[in-house]
Amino acid sequence: VPFKQVENLSHDSLIRRAASLVTDSSSTFLSQATLALIDAITEYSKAVHTLVALQRRHLNSLGKLSPAEEDSVWQVIIRQRAEVNDRQDECKRFESTWISAVKMCETAAEAAYTSGAEHASITVRTNIQVALSQVEEAQKLSADADKKLAETKVMEIERMAQYTASQSKNDEEDIPEAYLRED
Amino acid sequence: VPFKQVENLSHDSLIRRAASLVTDSSSTFLSQATLALIDAITEYSKAVHTLVALQRRHLNSLGKLSPAEEDSVWQVIIRQRAEVNDRQDECKRFESTWISAVKMCETAAEAAYTSGAEHASITVRTNIQVALSQVEEAQKLSADADKKLAETKVMEIERMAQYTASQSKNDEEDIPEAYLRED
Repeated sequence: VPFKQVENLSHDSLIRRAASLVTDSSSTFLSQATLALIDAITEYSKAVHTLVALQRRHLNSLGKLSPAEEDSVWQVIIRQRAEVNDRQDECKRFESTWISAVKMCETAAEAAYTSGAEHASITVRTNIQVALSQVEEAQKLSADADKKLAETKVMEIERMAQYTASQSKNDEEDIPEAYLRED
Repeated sequence: VPFKQVENLSHDSLIRRAASLVTDSSSTFLSQATLALIDAITEYSKAVHTLVALQRRHLNSLGKLSPAEEDSVWQVIIRQRAEVNDRQDECKRFESTWISAVKMCETAAEAAYTSGAEHASITVRTNIQVALSQVEEAQKLSADADKKLAETKVMEIERMAQYTASQSKNDEEDIPEAYLRED
């Protein structure tokens, strides 16, 4: 079919194909970035929940531990706080990649549309929507974890105030300094 | 080498690879768009030069042709003007694709850089520079053709004025209407 062959070699046809390659690779890039971001958010949420559990357990054992036990509990909490910070940094890092992947896909969708590759343009736009809603779901998990952490902080302040009041009646044992640290 | 394997499966590594795919396909897209635009500009320039040659030949034969010959020369010039317009439309169309391909490559370069694929980012930026200079070269050709067309227009107005003046002394033969048309 000679007409068909000429069509396949036309600039328009070659540009359309190249534009489809770009939307395909942009979609792949977006899906890798989305998976990485969701994993990072999930790991961050888990780390926060672990920190919350440790802090609550510690609050419930206030005054019931020996100084050595108290100290080892503190070491665990401090390590977990560092873990939470690391996970948060990773979230930020993958979030910036993910934002640039979304931008990439939007540019690819536009370029495909301009080049007459409407189908490729629609496909990549659908992929953007899917990625947005997946990340939104994951962000609900981390928002939930952040909320629990904030609640624990309030609880901590109250309990420590009670504990200090009761302690100052008894003796002058200091509150571990690390406990007052900002996180 | 187990460490190597873990590296290859890390999110960072997968993202970097996907970002390189995007820069590769964006470069392909840009080179197709560049070839198409350069071809379109070249064809436009050729069409303009042909029109200039036809118009100059016609001016040199003013008053030397029979009405039938005059008419057939006019048909050729009118057809060539239409050809020039078509070629110009094609230039505009491919130019808009090309601009979106450049934008695409810039976004891809940025995304690759954010993802840690610095080499891919540099490569695509180099490709953008090459494309820009290639198109610039081609645009010099069409600017040159446009200049010749403008010169011919001035020459045309002068010669037609002379011819009309000399004709009004002789008889009342009209200037073909198509000649006065804007192009």
